[in-house]
Order: sequence, then C-alpha cells, then structure tokens
Amino acid sequence: MAVDFYDIDSLLTEEERMVRDNVRAFVDARVLPGISKHYEEGTFPTELIPEFGKLGVLGATLPEKYGCAGMGDIAYGLVMKELERADSGIRSFCSVQGALVMYPIYAFGSEEHRTTWLPKLASGEAVGCFGLTEPDYGSNPGGMITRAERTATGFRLNGTKRWITNGNLADVAIVWAKLDGVIRGFVVPTNTPGFTALKIERKFSLRASVTSELILEDVDVPESALMPGVQGIKGPLSCLTQARFGIAWGVIGAAEACFECAVDYAKNRVQFSRPIAGYQLVQAKFADMLTEITKAQLVAWRLGKLKEAKQMRPDQVSLAKRNNVHMALETARKCRDILGGNGITYDYPISRHLLNLETVITYEGTHDIHTLVLGQSVTGIAAYDSPMDPPRAK
Amino acid sequence: MAVDFYDIDSLLTEEERMVRDNVRAFVDARVLPGISKHYEEGTFPTELIPEFGKLGVLGATLPEKYGCAGMGDIAYGLVMKELERADSGIRSFCSVQGALVMYPIYAFGSEEHRTTWLPKLASGEAVGCFGLTEPDYGSNPGGMITRAERTATGFRLNGTKRWITNGNLADVAIVWAKLDGVIRGFVVPTNTPGFTALKIERKFSLRASVTSELILEDVDVPESALMPGVQGIKGPLSCLTQARFGIAWGVIGAAEACFECAVDYAKNRVQFSRPIAGYQLVQAKFADMLTEITKAQLVAWRLGKLKEAKQMRPDQVSLAKRNNVHMALETARKCRDILGGNGITYDYPISRHLLNLETVITYEGTHDIHTLVLGQSVTGIAAYDSPMDPPRAK
Amino acid sequence: MAVDFYDIDSLLTEEERMVRDNVRAFVDARVLPGISKHYEEGTFPTELIPEFGKLGVLGATLPEKYGCAGMGDIAYGLVMKELERADSGIRSFCSVQGALVMYPIYAFGSEEHRTTWLPKLASGEAVGCFGLTEPDYGSNPGGMITRAERTATGFRLNGTKRWITNGNLADVAIVWAKLDGVIRGFVVPTNTPGFTALKIERKFSLRASVTSELILEDVDVPESALMPGVQGIKGPLSCLTQARFGIAWGVIGAAEACFECAVDYAKNRVQFSRPIAGYQLVQAKFADMLTEITKAQLVAWRLGKLKEAKQMRPDQVSLAKRNNVHMALETARKCRDILGGNGITYDYPISRHLLNLETVITYEGTHDIHTLVLGQSVTGIAAYDSPMDPPRAK
Amino acid sequence: MAVDFYDIDSLLTEEERMVRDNVRAFVDARVLPGISKHYEEGTFPTELIPEFGKLGVLGATLPEKYGCAGMGDIAYGLVMKELERADSGIRSFCSVQGALVMYPIYAFGSEEHRTTWLPKLASGEAVGCFGLTEPDYGSNPGGMITRAERTATGFRLNGTKRWITNGNLADVAIVWAKLDGVIRGFVVPTNTPGFTALKIERKFSLRASVTSELILEDVDVPESALMPGVQGIKGPLSCLTQARFGIAWGVIGAAEACFECAVDYAKNRVQFSRPIAGYQLVQAKFADMLTEITKAQLVAWRLGKLKEAKQMRPDQVSLAKRNNVHMALETARKCRDILGGNGITYDYPISRHLLNLETVITYEGTHDIHTLVLGQSVTGIAAYDSPMDPPRAK
Repeated sequence: MAVDFYDIDSLLTEEERMVRDNVRAFVDARVLPGISKHYEEGTFPTELIPEFGKLGVLGATLPEKYGCAGMGDIAYGLVMKELERADSGIRSFCSVQGALVMYPIYAFGSEEHRTTWLPKLASGEAVGCFGLTEPDYGSNPGGMITRAERTATGFRLNGTKRWITNGNLADVAIVWAKLDGVIRGFVVPTNTPGFTALKIERKFSLRASVTSELILEDVDVPESALMPGVQGIKGPLSCLTQARFGIAWGVIGAAEACFECAVDYAKNRVQFSRPIAGYQLVQAKFADMLTEITKAQLVAWRLGKLKEAKQMRPDQVSLAKRNNVHMALETARKCRDILGGNGITYDYPISRHLLNLETVITYEGTHDIHTLVLGQSVTGIAAYDSPMDPPRAK
Repeated sequence: MAVDFYDIDSLLTEEERMVRDNVRAFVDARVLPGISKHYEEGTFPTELIPEFGKLGVLGATLPEKYGCAGMGDIAYGLVMKELERADSGIRSFCSVQGALVMYPIYAFGSEEHRTTWLPKLASGEAVGCFGLTEPDYGSNPGGMITRAERTATGFRLNGTKRWITNGNLADVAIVWAKLDGVIRGFVVPTNTPGFTALKIERKFSLRASVTSELILEDVDVPESALMPGVQGIKGPLSCLTQARFGIAWGVIGAAEACFECAVDYAKNRVQFSRPIAGYQLVQAKFADMLTEITKAQLVAWRLGKLKEAKQMRPDQVSLAKRNNVHMALETARKCRDILGGNGITYDYPISRHLLNLETVITYEGTHDIHTLVLGQSVTGIAAYDSPMDPPRAK
Repeated sequence: MAVDFYDIDSLLTEEERMVRDNVRAFVDARVLPGISKHYEEGTFPTELIPEFGKLGVLGATLPEKYGCAGMGDIAYGLVMKELERADSGIRSFCSVQGALVMYPIYAFGSEEHRTTWLPKLASGEAVGCFGLTEPDYGSNPGGMITRAERTATGFRLNGTKRWITNGNLADVAIVWAKLDGVIRGFVVPTNTPGFTALKIERKFSLRASVTSELILEDVDVPESALMPGVQGIKGPLSCLTQARFGIAWGVIGAAEACFECAVDYAKNRVQFSRPIAGYQLVQAKFADMLTEITKAQLVAWRLGKLKEAKQMRPDQVSLAKRNNVHMALETARKCRDILGGNGITYDYPISRHLLNLETVITYEGTHDIHTLVLGQSVTGIAAYDSPMDPPRAK
Repeated sequence: MAVDFYDIDSLLTEEERMVRDNVRAFVDARVLPGISKHYEEGTFPTELIPEFGKLGVLGATLPEKYGCAGMGDIAYGLVMKELERADSGIRSFCSVQGALVMYPIYAFGSEEHRTTWLPKLASGEAVGCFGLTEPDYGSNPGGMITRAERTATGFRLNGTKRWITNGNLADVAIVWAKLDGVIRGFVVPTNTPGFTALKIERKFSLRASVTSELILEDVDVPESALMPGVQGIKGPLSCLTQARFGIAWGVIGAAEACFECAVDYAKNRVQFSRPIAGYQLVQAKFADMLTEITKAQLVAWRLGKLKEAKQMRPDQVSLAKRNNVHMALETARKCRDILGGNGITYDYPISRHLLNLETVITYEGTHDIHTLVLGQSVTGIAAYDSPMDPPRAK
C-alpha cells in the first residue's frame, strides 16, 4: 500500500509511474534488507553505488549525452521519494551526487569538467561531495573563510569544510572558496595533496551515511579546476535549490514508510477489547498524519510542475523543504508513539526515520532559515540579521 | 493582490478565471461596502439575493435547463472563495441555497419539484433552508426525532430543527424526517400551517447570516412533498458532502482576506526602528500562514478535479473541510494578533472572519467528527461511538 | 465547583480564603446576572463602581490610611481571579483603577496627590485612567510623542493617547509625557480644558469595558500636577508590572469559568450512546485544560509569594502574564469547541471570555513582547529591535 | 547554573538542598564523565551500583531500620532530578530499584521479605526488577497472562514479561501473576530454575540501561514467595504511582541539562553579525522552554508537598508524569534544533536526552493513558475502552 488519499497517482504519466515502480522494486529488493544493519553499524552500503548508477538515479535529470537518464523533474522527485522510503541516508547520497556535484559541474563547469566527470558520476564509478558549509558558517555560507589564491599554475586552496555528506567516499569535491573576495567553485580531485577528509563519528542520525570534515591545506589545483560559469553566493545557493527540491520529495517517502508501519501495527496491536486502531486518540493521530502527508504530496507535485515549466523560484522550494521535512519529522514522532515500547528498537523502520529526520530538518537550510526566506517573500524585508541587511541573494 | 504563491492560477481555465473575476468584482462593489454594518447589526443583506441570482451563483453547478449556470466544480469553488472573502455568512447563504436545497431537489426530487423550485431558487426569487440538525442531534443526525406520519392525503410532520441557516428567510424548507423509521426528505413551503421559524439571536458569530429554529407542529403536506429519490441517512449526508466541498473552497477566501490585511498592516505599522513586518517573530507567523494557505489551495484544487472527474469520495471532502477550516481559523487568529489593539474592532475585516470561523469549524460536521471519518478511512474501524458501531454510511 | 486539582486552597491563609469567598459571593450576586446584557449592549455597569469601593477591591493592596484595604498580594490576586471569572472587563476596570492609577499616585505622587485622590478612588467616588499608549506607540512606549512644556504656572500638555481603559469614565488621568525629553507623569483632572475623551466603538472584545482615545490639546496643569517620584520609562513600566500581576491571576478566573461550563455541558450533552464527556477526543481536551489551569494556578501562587517577599522581578511577571493569558485563551477556544453550536451564542459565558481574551493577550505587553523579555532574561541580549539596542529598562 | 527562574530553591529546606548538592556533586564526578561512552556502547555502568548505595539513593524514602535513607519525598524528588540530569537510564535504574522493587517489598511484603532484601537492595549489593508488563499487555496490565498455580510446596509461575528494566542485572524480581484469577505479587530470586532473562538489544533509546524480556517456565517458588499485603491490580498500580512520582521530578533534570547546554551554545555560536542567542526566533524557543521548565518545577514541588502530607492521589501523579515528560521531550527537541548540525552527535548531552525521553514518555503509563486518567477525573467517566468500562482502579 502506498498512501495516496487524493489519487495523485492519476496526475502522473505512465513513464513517471514506471520509473517510480522500478526504483520501488529496487529499494525493496536491494536496500531495505540490509539498511538497518548498516544503520546500527554506522556504515554506508557502498556496494549499492554502481547499482544506483545502473538504475539511472544519479544526476537523473541531466542529459543522456553525459551518461545521465534525462528524466523529468517529477520522475526525479518520485525517485527521491522511493529512495528515502528506505532511509534518508540513501537519498542523501544520491542528492549530493546529483544535485550538489553533477548539477554544478553541468551548469557551471567547463565542457572538460562535464565530459571528465559526469559519465563516471552517473555510473557510480566515481563519487562526489560538496564543500560549502564550514564549522563556523552554516546558515551564513557567504561568510566562508576558505580562500583560493592564484599561483603560477592555478590556485591554492586553504580552509575547512564540515558536515560534508560523502566526504570520505568522494573521488571529487566541489569546493567553494573566496577568490579575491568573490565566491567561486573548484572541481578538486580528493587525492590532491593537502586534501584530507575526516569522518565524523558518534552520530545518532543519518548513520547509514558518511559525514565528513574536509581539511584543505595548501591544496594546489590547476587553472582548469575553476568552474567558469558562476560567481558569488548564487552559485552554491542554486545547487542547494536543486537539492532541496529532492528533499521535499524524498521525505514524503520517509513519512509514508512510518505511516504504513504504524497503521499496520495499530490494526494488529490489541489492548483492552480491540485493536488500538479503533481508539479515538489513535485515530486522531492518523487523521492528522494522513492530512499532512496528502498536503505534502500536493506541494511536491505542484513544485515539480513548476520546475518542469522552468518557473520554480527558490522561495517556493523553501516552502516545500520546510513544510515537508517538518511534516515527516512530526509523522515519525507520532508513529513512534503509536508503537509504544516497540517504537524504540530497530525492529521497525520508524526509529531510523525518526533519527534521520533530525538531520534533514537542519541541513540544506534550517527550518528557521526557510522561515525567514518565506518571511522575506511575503514582506519584502530581509530579517536574517539586522534591519540593514540587503535582500538575500537566492 | 491575491495569495497565489504556487501559481495555482495557471492551473485554471480561462473560463474559471473569468467567473472568479466577475464574482470578485461583484463582491468588491456590492458586498464589502456594507457587510460590516450588517454584521454589527445582526442582519442579512437581503437586497443582494436577486443579485446573487443574476450573478449565477445560486445552485451554480446545476443544469441551465433549470435556470442554473451549469458551471464546473472548480469554477463553483472559486465562486465560494470569493464570496467568503467578504464574509462566511454570505457564502453560507449561497451554500445552503445551492448545496443543501437545490442539490437535493435536483438529485432526489421529482421533476415537479425541480421545475417548481429550481428556477425560482436560482434567480433568488425564492429562498430555501435545510432542516436536518435537531437540538439534541447534531453529530448524530441519524438519531433524529422528527417524524412523518402518513395521512389520508399525504404526510404530517412533527419535530424541531435547530441551527438552520436561512430559516427565517426561506420560502421552502427541505425537511428530513423519519417515516416508518426511515429517513426521508420533504419539500415543505414555509407558509404551510404549523411551520414556525424562530430566529436565533445573541450570536457573536455569523451575525450577517440568519440562523433559526424550525418548529413543525402537525404540518400537513401532500403526497407530492416527499422526495422520491433517496431513503436513509445517505440522503442528507450526500447534501452535506456538496456543501462541505463549497466550504473547503470558501474558507480560503476568508483566510486570504485576513492574510492580505495583516501583511498590509505589518508593512505600515512601525514599532521601534522598522515596520513590524521586519521582525522575525512576525515573519514566522507569515511563513506559517503562507504555507498553510498554499496547501489549502492545493487541497481544494485537487478535490475539485476529483469532483469534476466524478471520483470524489466523502472522506476526501472531510479531509478538505477539516483542514481548510482549521487553517482559516488559525490564520484569522494569527492575523488578529498581528494587528494588536487594532485587531479587536470592526475597522478591519479580520475580526468578522475570526468570529465567523468559530461557527464554520463546527457546522457541517465538526472538526472532531471529520477526524473520525478520516480515522475510519485509515483503519477501517468506526470509532464514533462504541466498538460495535457498524461502519458509518457516507 | 472551583478547579483545584492540586489543592492550592490549602496553601492559602484563612484570611485569603475569606477575601476570595466574599468577592465570589459578590460576583455571583451582583455582577453575573447582568454582565451578558452589558456585554451585548457595549456598556459598563457603572452602578457597580461604588460597590467595588465598599468591597475593598480598588487599590486593595494600598494602605488603610488612604482608605484602601491593605490586603496582601495573594489575597489581591484571588480578588482579580474572582472578578475575571465574571468578565475581563470588570477585572480590567479594577486593574486600571488600582494598579495603573492608585499605585503610581501612591508610589510616585506627592502627599497631596495621595490625600486628594486615593480615598476617592478607593471608594469608587472617583474613577481614574492611565494614559501611556499612543496610536503609533504601543510596544515601544518610550517613543511617545506626547509632550509637556513648562509654562509660567506649570505645564502645558499636548498629544494623543489611545486604547485607554476607563477613559470616558474617568475623573482623573495619569498622563505620561516627555518633559525636556524625559518621561514624566502628570495627575490631570479630566475636566481640565483641552482634555477630550472619545469612546472607541465597534469592538467585539471587552465590550463591557470602556475604551477611549484621549486628546490633549493645550491642556494646562499647575506645577503640582507633576508626580515628583519618578523619571523615565521605568515609571509607567513599574505600573504595568503591578497590572500584569493582577492579569496573571485574573485570567485564571476566566479559564475556570469556561472549563466548568464546558465540563457541565459535556456531561449533559448526549450524542450517540453517551454524554460527550465520555469520548476520548473530548477527554483529551479536558486533560490538557486541567493541566494548563493547574500550572497557571501554581505560577500565580508562586509569583504572589515572591511579591509578598518583595522579591518579584518584572521578567517573572512577564512569564506569568504571557503564560496565563495564553492558557486562558486556549482554554476558552477549546471550551467553545466542546459546546458546538451552543458555543456561538451569549447563552453561555464562554463566548464573552473567548472574545475578551483576544484583548487581554494584546494589552499590557503583547505575547511577543513578553517572549522577548524572557529571551533577554535567558540570553542577556535584547532582541526587541536591532542588535545595537541597549538592554530594556524593566 | 541551574534553571530556577521562580526561586524554587527558597522553598526547600536546608537538608533538601544538601541532599541535592551531594547527588549533584556525585553525578558530576562519577556519572557524567563516562555516561556517553556507556550510551554509545549500550552498557550500564554497573560499577556505580554500590556507589548509589553509599549515596543513599536506593529506596531513599524507606525507613533507616532497613538500611534506607528515610528521606522526605521532596528530597527524593530532587535526587531523581539530579540523576536524570545525567541520563534517564541512570534514574531508571534507581526508580526501579526503589519504587518498583523496594517499595512493594516494604509495603506489601512479609517482614521476612523486608529483612532479607531491603538492606541488600539499599546498599546495592543486590539488584531488583519489576515484572508486570507483558508483550501483549502494556496499557492494560490487568489482562496479563502470567499465571501462578498452587503446588504442594508453594507456587509454580509461567508467563513472559517484557520491557523489564534491570532484568539482566537483577538478583530478585517482583513478579505479578494471576493466582486463581487474582493478581498477586511474588518475590522471585532470578537464579530460580526456569527463570530466564533475555536482554533486548537494538535500542536507540535508554541505551545506558538494561531492558529485558523475562521468561518464566515452570518457576517453582515456595509459599513464602507470595507477598501477603495486596491483591489485585491496585498492587502494581500503587508501585507505578511511586515510580511516576520520581519520573515527574527526574525528567526536569534532563530538561534542565538540555536547556543549559543550548543556552551556552547559542551565546557562543555566531552567525551573521551576532550570537544566535540574539535572534528573535531563537529567543522564542528559550522563552517557551523557560516557561515550561518553571511550570514543571512548580508541579513537581507541589506534588511533593502533597505526598509528604499523605494526600497525593494517583490522578495528580498522572498530571505530573504526563506534563513533565512531554515538557522534557519538547525541550530536548527544541534544544537539538538550536544546536543545528552539532545537535546530531554525542558530543553534546542533548542527543542522549532526546533519545531517552522517547522511552520515558511511553513507559509507566503512556501519554495517552494518562490523558484518559485525567479525563476520567474531570468527567467521572472511564474512556479507556468501551462505555461500559467500570471506573479504573487506581
């Protein structure tokens, strides 16, 4: 059963449904059986990476000429949803690879960047990561300290990036640094001398995903490492817009997985004279969740249509990311509650989703930052910092 | 400005937009100027009734052969939204006339019922009301006490109906009563001897709407008063489904009116160094409201599409009524808060909407009843009353 | 029945209980019978003013030598609670008279001010009002425009004050104005030439209370009108601290009245097979309300103890005002919901409380302003305006 | 710093403060340094058990003649709060030992039970567990399947108990079983043949606590194993009342630990131009948390006073358990949010508290069950199951 109370299925094309069903079958067969063990052990299922490639879910919306699937935005959204039905860490891997690495190479890189990296990244032969956030610059990435200096043959990079998904798995990093005070993007092979990735341990969330700190000490890259197509904070922000689109879809999968598990549990768990599904207090939770999931599905669908029509604005993505992640987190919390004691073990998938979503609500723009993006849209006034703030580039 | 953050406008047809714009212009010109005075004085603007008829908003989805506009469900929804942008009482008048009086006459009445009443009700020459709820039977209408007994020439009706919108304005009442233990509908002219309507006074809500108690004491009607086309509780419930569809659209208009007023106010109200629109606490309210309004719009639009495709189920309508009214009430509350002291007078429309929505969340199925409808949809178990309840007819 | 789930009664002294019971009996006998009619007609029951005086509730904590009751702070709080059990407008009248007029005269006035005004205000022979808020200066009263200029014989006052409770009833106004740029308080008889009070009409809230705009055009007062004992914004703010203390207690009375009404209703209103009090969804509302009322009672009691020990800080009062008013408003909303259709008329007291509390949550420091007072207490950083704000005087 | 916004400290006696400070110092020195490692590894710090004994926190309110500390209820509550400031698992160990094992032995056991077990349990020489919940009987323990049959020399026990804290650490188990259809309690050494404890693995919550399943297969105990002093469900329920009292206090410690950590973080974490503690959206979270913590402290203190006066009712405990655990969980969630990415690692204590509290809100009566206890108190109607339910024994 998939949750589809408003028959959104009938808004999809035949092809979109086929893509979704393919990924769903893959997830059932290849991801779900082992994901809980990976989660508990804090490991990423690297064996799946080439399979993602074969499935066509890496950089899935980019052109076929670079080895990508060239699928539409709604199809892509459905893919993200199916992947996150398994685990946010799985979806995060694919989000980073596609939206934060392949997208900027495609959109801002040179043709050499594209031909060198996109086919390998699409097939899963290579893995990428995205170096924007720094230990002291999260919600304000424009304040980054990482610097690029010109050298005789190219650039020398210095700085520290943190909370970098896939950092220790990556063959290539998109590194954002200030060159003469202007933010620029560099395509940096991770085996370049001076480049170090340190795995962040002791996480309770996204444990089936690799999160890293990147340390760049005198990393020398050639002139060709610079991505020519963009300058300023709008470069990385436009990547985030792509990634947030995928998150807005993906978390619906997590929510649906929790909901279906809790409904099934409640129909079978008898207390007093009947299944707990028959008590009003439990039904009220289901009514709220059904409503919120349905609305999130409509938000994602409409956003996809706007994206396909090339009319999607970043603030529209903020609404979807903020709403849908919050919805998914609240759903996971309610579902865990319905499972009672059984909700605190990894015997049911709800626990992983609950823990993962604590990260997802924070990364790619915290809930509060998206609140202020929307506040600015409504009022025309930026309130991120002081009243003197110039409007925030999107 | 209308709130349309996800460009739902572009999902509408040219004709739907035209209908909406017509009604919007009418509301601006004819309804808004006097509505606050009517509200304060507790009167309904009866002078508008024939104008509603000319505008085509009474029974708007019914066929032209009966003098109706024959418009589609989404166009109808847009009409309801524009009317409720002025006042829930105005929309209530039209909801009752169309969905609760003209719809059952069309769907369940005899051809004589149709030809006698529909043209007059469509033009506003006649007004109707819907007698289902009783003083002691609100959420459980199936328990009604009102009885019909067979007489030599027809039926004799006895009982009391309460919370009846338009009761004192009506020329005709659709009266639901038990005949031999089975709920049946009767078309009863209100000048029939024994029929009395008492206006319910001392309301703080829906003051620009007439709410009545109907007392039926030995009301004799001919055989032909009986509507032949339906038996049982599903008759009145199917009318409520029509009405709730209109409410789910209508309240978005109330919410949008509040939102626009509050945004405008906040951009102009300076406290300390800047407009209050520039403070994070105010922006957080706007972000939440924008999100909820946008989602409610998508819910209404999708529900309309399902209705047009003849695939709309009552539980889907429950989701929309429950979610959208709650959204509108919370929006009105937040907006009143933003207006501070200025929010407690009738100088701004927010106050009327705030007060009206306290009724709208209760009538046509309370919030809690719709919670349990959804709970039953999810779990398959009816929890309205005891576990032995049979599934509720919809 | 009074709500006392944690037996707070046993924390009171014999004398405190006696004071409370006296006022309770007075309210039952003299206030409740007519209050709904006054509310609907938008009038204040002026005939009660001398009775308040006899009862000893005007300026009740001030010394007996000025004709006051000299009661303790907890006794005073209990008085406020009993008065607001009837209507927030009644409590507001007494709050303003005592905390905003008699308190500053006592604390900051000359001995002549005290002997002239306190006995008359205590007996109800005279009524006072408090002129601080201006049309454009609500949350930021320090920005006031009203000015005092020195004249040969005293001062000339010019400015406009708004949202002034008791304005049209008052014999004397405490007017705050800037003299040489410093806020000072003046004791101004309202029959002084140039002083005009305009009643604010068209309110849906606090309708049994008089709210006014004061216009001061070249109001000449003698040198002796100036209150010698305080300078700066801390003068009026310290009055607000007194008034907020009374509000924090008072609104519990409103909440208790709603709760008791709704419990009684739910136990008698049968739907389906049982009283609605027996359904889980209704019980959940009662459980939440009982919890919140009990906590608010403990907050008020503890605050009273701190005040009696002369250790109460303004930020502690902010917590109580903010929490308890919000609690009362949410309680009124839930109770109105439980009453269904019957909740929208003045037949039950819940409606008045619901409407009144929309004002109470705004006046005397809005909910948001108290949020920021608490935020500053926790963090040491003022966030009312820009980061450069100096800490706010309390 | 401890959170004490309403100076509750001054309501304590000198001795209560001393007890608290002793435990606080112990927790700082002996528990906090290693707790995170134990949590990550899923182990309980057994080395602390004798130290708890020396500290006097095991069965702390029981008489000194049995080797216990004989402290008052508020002192005991303060102990629980300090222990849970470290970790809910630590407090759970002591709750179970004291309230669920030593209390029933003291209250319902024979003098032989008391002299045999209480001194050893008080010193930490022995550990106990409480066998009530079964796999299929959580919220409805009265439906338990575990049975005791009379044998020639005593009783034979059969059944399965689940979610048993300390199960694998215990030397003695209090086992509740039906004897001739009546619930009775048995004191069962865990080395009795047929008694097996299985550790429940794969928990994400309460990882520094041992949770077990107990399997009783033909466990033969002598006549003397039966506790003579109680029959029926009120036996175990009265133990739960004791334990819930400790939880209501304990979770305040968890909440305070999170709050202090988040305040400290926010004052030091700079984004844009200032510490995030200076932004309104962050301050709003602190204002809400400060308010809720303060109210929970007042609830716990008042409940302690009622308990010391022997007037505490079980429904009053339900209010405190339900409110305070929910408060603590919401506090942990808000604090994790404030920490952003840093909130998802074990580098800060918030993560452990967040995860633990998902168990604490479920065990010892779920949130929903306590809702219905309060609902019954308010309405007089039991709504746990069907309307025919007899009032629930407390």
